[in-house]
Amino acid sequence: MTETNLRILLRARPEGLVGPEHFEVSEGPLPSPRPGEALLRNRFLSLDPYMRGRMSAAKSYSAPVEIGAVMEGQCVSQVVEDPTGRFQAGDWVLGGFGWQRFSAVAVSGLRKLDPQTGPVTTALGVLGMPGTTAWVGTTELAAPRPGETFVVSAASGAVGSVAGQIAMRMGARVVGIAGGAEKCAFVRDELGFPDCVDHRAADFPERLRAACSSGIDAYFENVGGAVQKAVFPLLNDFGRVAFCGMVAEYNDDAPAPGPNLMQVVRKRLSLRGFIVSDHPRAFADWRSTGGEWVREGSLKYREDVVRGLEGAPEAFMGLLAGKNFGKLVIEVT
Amino acid sequence: MTETNLRILLRARPEGLVGPEHFEVSEGPLPSPRPGEALLRNRFLSLDPYMRGRMSAAKSYSAPVEIGAVMEGQCVSQVVEDPTGRFQAGDWVLGGFGWQRFSAVAVSGLRKLDPQTGPVTTALGVLGMPGTTAWVGTTELAAPRPGETFVVSAASGAVGSVAGQIAMRMGARVVGIAGGAEKCAFVRDELGFPDCVDHRAADFPERLRAACSSGIDAYFENVGGAVQKAVFPLLNDFGRVAFCGMVAEYNDDAPAPGPNLMQVVRKRLSLRGFIVSDHPRAFADWRSTGGEWVREGSLKYREDVVRGLEGAPEAFMGLLAGKNFGKLVIEVT
Repeated sequence: MTETNLRILLRARPEGLVGPEHFEVSEGPLPSPRPGEALLRNRFLSLDPYMRGRMSAAKSYSAPVEIGAVMEGQCVSQVVEDPTGRFQAGDWVLGGFGWQRFSAVAVSGLRKLDPQTGPVTTALGVLGMPGTTAWVGTTELAAPRPGETFVVSAASGAVGSVAGQIAMRMGARVVGIAGGAEKCAFVRDELGFPDCVDHRAADFPERLRAACSSGIDAYFENVGGAVQKAVFPLLNDFGRVAFCGMVAEYNDDAPAPGPNLMQVVRKRLSLRGFIVSDHPRAFADWRSTGGEWVREGSLKYREDVVRGLEGAPEAFMGLLAGKNFGKLVIEVT
Repeated sequence: MTETNLRILLRARPEGLVGPEHFEVSEGPLPSPRPGEALLRNRFLSLDPYMRGRMSAAKSYSAPVEIGAVMEGQCVSQVVEDPTGRFQAGDWVLGGFGWQRFSAVAVSGLRKLDPQTGPVTTALGVLGMPGTTAWVGTTELAAPRPGETFVVSAASGAVGSVAGQIAMRMGARVVGIAGGAEKCAFVRDELGFPDCVDHRAADFPERLRAACSSGIDAYFENVGGAVQKAVFPLLNDFGRVAFCGMVAEYNDDAPAPGPNLMQVVRKRLSLRGFIVSDHPRAFADWRSTGGEWVREGSLKYREDVVRGLEGAPEAFMGLLAGKNFGKLVIEVT
């Protein structure tokens, strides 16, 4: 068997909407592990909105992907060969790299997974980066108090679904915002949020206002755009907004204006952005706390698994448009 | 002697620019103290930007002034008569009320001033509400660390002048923003800020960028508008903005759009609004700390005293346009 490495490269930087023309599917030789590295076969690739930022050259909190380089992404993988001897062939690990079938990665950055304790894909979603993001943003920034109204956008998504469930455990009244009746039904019926408002409804601002009859004390911002516009006027005095992302605007050519900030004074708001990688200790903390809730079945999650690496660009474009339903994962075949 | 009470009433609510037509000068009988109240002769009236908010009916953190009512404001006054026996006639007190020559005010809300320890007007400015505002916003919200760049707008004003001097004591590199060469020279030469940038300069954004060559770590926001637009792109990762006010926009008919908030995520910014009255314990704290600095001459301040209550409307309009130079006070004659 002469295996090749199927890879998806960044062909061009999008200005505005991401399209298939920005990606290139390429076959190459298997990567050769350098000293300290293991060769991995990537089994599941996580697709996340932050990757849109990596496609642009604009200054951000992390360096952009170079043109012609493999698209960045985190994988759950199986060890093919580990010259360092730390892992056995066949071991499941978190830490494979990129939109590709194989990767050679420093073993120091890998964490062994035990497939017996639960689905390995949870390491990319509910118990991984997105879940930890929800944990940090909800407990440390939005910080709802019992009885307060907590609103989260992209409520059926990888981050929002967990944020809302954490806020419910903190005693808040949780209102989700999601796109479409099916997602809203899932948020209410499966996740157990008391309410979820469809942002595609023509009268969305009025519906949100009705769902938040006591105003909004804490908002977990994932989407920006029209949803942000509807949320801001409802914020109560001393309201907190945890800014996690604004996916609805990631494809915009130029940043749209935001809300006038005088309301920040009048209402004594606190608007705080965060990036989970600034909170390295939170990952193990959340794996322990959230892992128990997942095992006991009290924390719900949904994965949207797309089979085949070749489908990653289309799936990613869908993610930016809100077409996924739950944590988007590519099963690398 | 039959004294009358000269009063300035709110005649109409401004939409946009405040003009003389929104005020009414009126003479009436002296107010009669109710049980627990003293009759005061107001000697100095503080004029502050927040009063613009009280002229509008829009929901804010405090109730609006009613049409036909005396304009709200804090005064340093002398006691005419105190039936409760707590104060002597002639005592100087902080707590007189309104744009008027006399007021009847509950003695429980008055604080005696000792004119021997310093000018009584400082109770309205550097050691009063504006100074305490600077103290809270700088130490608790903007919280500059040694070596960081701290920027304050309206740097020659009642709040900004104190905020910058506090930030210098905290070890920050302080850059002021003020309107016009004269104010900038005062900020540099008298207040001792290392730099001050004139926001009226055609190339203000470039000048600000040059003055903040390491970016901006903490910003004390007093003005909004074009100044805010120039500051935001210069904010560093983990930058903090203390939102105190946005006086440049108070006369706007409708709120102008603000900055796109995706940068709040990318830079992990913290944008926090505050109102000093939410921090009641800070007043005595600052009087003690700032009072010592004022007495020893290490904290500089400037007052802009306008003689005659009749001039209050024009002086207030000037305040909103940045025409005052230092803490604006009306000497009530």
